[in-house]
Amino acid sequence: MTELARDIIGGKIRAIARGISLVENNIKGREELIDALFPHTGKAQVWGITGPPGAGKSTLADLLISCERDRGRKVAVVAVDPSSPFTGGALLGDRLRMQSHAEDDGVFIRSMASRGHLGGVSGATLDAVKVLDAAGFDTIIVETIGVGQTEVDIIELTDLVLLVLVPGMGDEIQAMKAGVMEIGDIFVINKSDKEGAEKLRTEVEYVLGFKYAGEKEKMNPVCLVSAKMKKGLDHLRNEMERLYGQLEESGELREKRKERIRKELLRIFSLKIHELLDRKMDFYNNVGEWAEMIYNKDVKPYHFINERLRFFLKKESE
Amino acid sequence: MTELARDIIGGKIRAIARGISLVENNIKGREELIDALFPHTGKAQVWGITGPPGAGKSTLADLLISCERDRGRKVAVVAVDPSSPFTGGALLGDRLRMQSHAEDDGVFIRSMASRGHLGGVSGATLDAVKVLDAAGFDTIIVETIGVGQTEVDIIELTDLVLLVLVPGMGDEIQAMKAGVMEIGDIFVINKSDKEGAEKLRTEVEYVLGFKYAGEKEKMNPVCLVSAKMKKGLDHLRNEMERLYGQLEESGELREKRKERIRKELLRIFSLKIHELLDRKMDFYNNVGEWAEMIYNKDVKPYHFINERLRFFLKKESE
Repeated sequence: MTELARDIIGGKIRAIARGISLVENNIKGREELIDALFPHTGKAQVWGITGPPGAGKSTLADLLISCERDRGRKVAVVAVDPSSPFTGGALLGDRLRMQSHAEDDGVFIRSMASRGHLGGVSGATLDAVKVLDAAGFDTIIVETIGVGQTEVDIIELTDLVLLVLVPGMGDEIQAMKAGVMEIGDIFVINKSDKEGAEKLRTEVEYVLGFKYAGEKEKMNPVCLVSAKMKKGLDHLRNEMERLYGQLEESGELREKRKERIRKELLRIFSLKIHELLDRKMDFYNNVGEWAEMIYNKDVKPYHFINERLRFFLKKESE
Repeated sequence: MTELARDIIGGKIRAIARGISLVENNIKGREELIDALFPHTGKAQVWGITGPPGAGKSTLADLLISCERDRGRKVAVVAVDPSSPFTGGALLGDRLRMQSHAEDDGVFIRSMASRGHLGGVSGATLDAVKVLDAAGFDTIIVETIGVGQTEVDIIELTDLVLLVLVPGMGDEIQAMKAGVMEIGDIFVINKSDKEGAEKLRTEVEYVLGFKYAGEKEKMNPVCLVSAKMKKGLDHLRNEMERLYGQLEESGELREKRKERIRKELLRIFSLKIHELLDRKMDFYNNVGEWAEMIYNKDVKPYHFINERLRFFLKKESE
């Protein structure tokens, strides 16, 4: 095992930060690091927080950090912004707010942005979670900036998802339309001191009612919270614990995690083949030339592609 | 060349329908058929029509069919619904309306739905367009039901896109937000007799103004149309012809079509590798078992996947 892996397992903050950078920038040594850390993973609870921009996800994450610290648990936050090629303005502002924990060694906060390389931010986030898990954090919160498809993909890879909605933004309806309601395990209505919070709760429960017709006891919790006024947080945290316990007991957590690995395998395998194509066959450089040949009708499209595929496989196995 | 290919090139309607079914269901012989037809393609103008549900895309397509027929041009419509595994209710209603052309041999209308097989509706649509092109249709209209990502992918593969918006639905703003404005070559404001049509035109032109700051002459046309009242259609058709002429003269059409082929190559190549994985290595069946092994920490994830990849390539090349 490398020194870096040892230091990460030892919980050294600088090593953790370096490990995540290695993963985020997809630098050589990433795979060996993750393989070395892997036997030490699986202990952390991984929570996802998602919802429309402006729902107060970061403030909520901030308060959940305090909740966890009060319980003596080490906690890490990974904030993901797939749309941004760098860690940008508003995001930075959010992170700054969380710096109230900057002096606390039991708290680690990191933003992940898309660096444009293959596999992108989903793969990097998953591996960053493994780094933090191996480093001994008890709770890892994955927070997304928006609610696009990439965010949904990322958030689906956590153990338990909080979907944060706020009254009066119109976004809640959009979220429901977009099928985002499907991914929430707990629905958090934030800014509950604002008008319309109760109405929103009724709407959410109405939609959930359809989903769980006849088995109300299975219905996902809907929690009213005011992150600003620190109201409703204990109730939320208790509901999270209750649900987590249920997931563990029923074996659902195990299945969720296996499914996470299955999806990851598919993603990595596909990614690796694309990397091979690119590196060994200069595929992505050649494909423009090939398009020209097909456009000019010099070759027949399917015949040509079958020929290239055979060539690729032959060359790769030599 | 097969009899089917010959009959399609000869413009026989039953052969065309059979060819498209073959493509849609991804039946053996699809590749050979497309390869045989391919030298006969490239003559048709391929238009895309997209926009939010209820914008009146089908009615507009219906009237454009008449426009084309008046000009002595043969025209085909491919209506695409990626979200539906079958040709469903509302869609069927739309198609029924277009049956005013049912007796006309110069018109061919076909719905494409997602059959769930790999490559899905995008690949099937592209190949269906090739069948219709080889069959001698002068104009091929690809119409989508909604404006999701799959629809955007499909519509980007046409020569010229009409983005249809309607006043007063709020959808126009959503469309702009979602970046759908990026894909329109001509903006059609339908139901122009409704209140708010002029306001919507102003809004669209305002957004386009940012895109084409300083080069107004390049700005995409915005056409007010009332499909129901048959108003504005001649103007729209003239604008389409003008823009098409520009695309041809400037060489942009050639580049668009090459880019279309390039994207298709990437898609097919990737698809073929996934099919190989599935067929030869039983990859998708095994991956659940592998996830179990990784979950139990019997193997290290990256090491394991690299091993499987080598095995796959070796086996494939034997």
